[in-house]
Amino acid sequence: MDNKSREGMDGSMLMDPEISKILKGKNFASFATLMNDGSPQVTPVWVDYRDDLILVNTAVGRLKEKNIDRDNRVALCVFETENPYNMVSIKGRVVDKRTEGADKHIDELAKRYLNVDKYPYRRPDEKRVILKIMPEKIFHLKI
Amino acid sequence: MDNKSREGMDGSMLMDPEISKILKGKNFASFATLMNDGSPQVTPVWVDYRDDLILVNTAVGRLKEKNIDRDNRVALCVFETENPYNMVSIKGRVVDKRTEGADKHIDELAKRYLNVDKYPYRRPDEKRVILKIMPEKIFHLKI
Repeated sequence: MDNKSREGMDGSMLMDPEISKILKGKNFASFATLMNDGSPQVTPVWVDYRDDLILVNTAVGRLKEKNIDRDNRVALCVFETENPYNMVSIKGRVVDKRTEGADKHIDELAKRYLNVDKYPYRRPDEKRVILKIMPEKIFHLKI
Repeated sequence: MDNKSREGMDGSMLMDPEISKILKGKNFASFATLMNDGSPQVTPVWVDYRDDLILVNTAVGRLKEKNIDRDNRVALCVFETENPYNMVSIKGRVVDKRTEGADKHIDELAKRYLNVDKYPYRRPDEKRVILKIMPEKIFHLKI
């Protein structure tokens, strides 16, 4: 059985073809943040990367945005839908938040994940924001 | 669009047919624990439930077992593979750990997830353990 696991601390590992395939596919990430009391919380998100940073697009004021403002340490785990035994687990920190470009970015993600041109779940009053995550530990497993 | 979300604090919600279907399917959980420094870590696990407790089967001495011995607060998130827009997110605490029955249990999970009679990844020196998680918050989303 081909059981390949690798660990790294360099964000450039995201561009590895096997990992890039997971992160640029139609695969959901489980995104963990820390609550006020330090307990973990996990929510599903679409995921993307640019250069050596992981990108998560959320709405301003959501629980996870409040959580990362308080404590920027996060973790996420992404499986390939077709083969969940190909997965990547990442620990890191949110190092930047940007509202500029966030609307365009969520539409790009909607194209990838839903094959529609416009993100269909936008609420009238919502402001999108891109969370930029610097990986500190990347673990890739493929069985 | 049928967008149904529900929140509860009662473990009996696990037996709800929609949630049970996710937890008893061939679906992976992303399991978050807390590291020594309080940062979150997420790993993929098979998942099960019995009565109103979530069950995770791991090996004694693994990072996640050490983490929950130090801080029993955990979170997990499970998508339905066929429809990732049917998902459940759970926060809770590990309230019990049992090695009795854990070998039989991992074989049952191997049957469900891999359709084999014996868990094929067992290492000669490994001791399996069942982590029992009491849900404190359950969130179910179906789009």
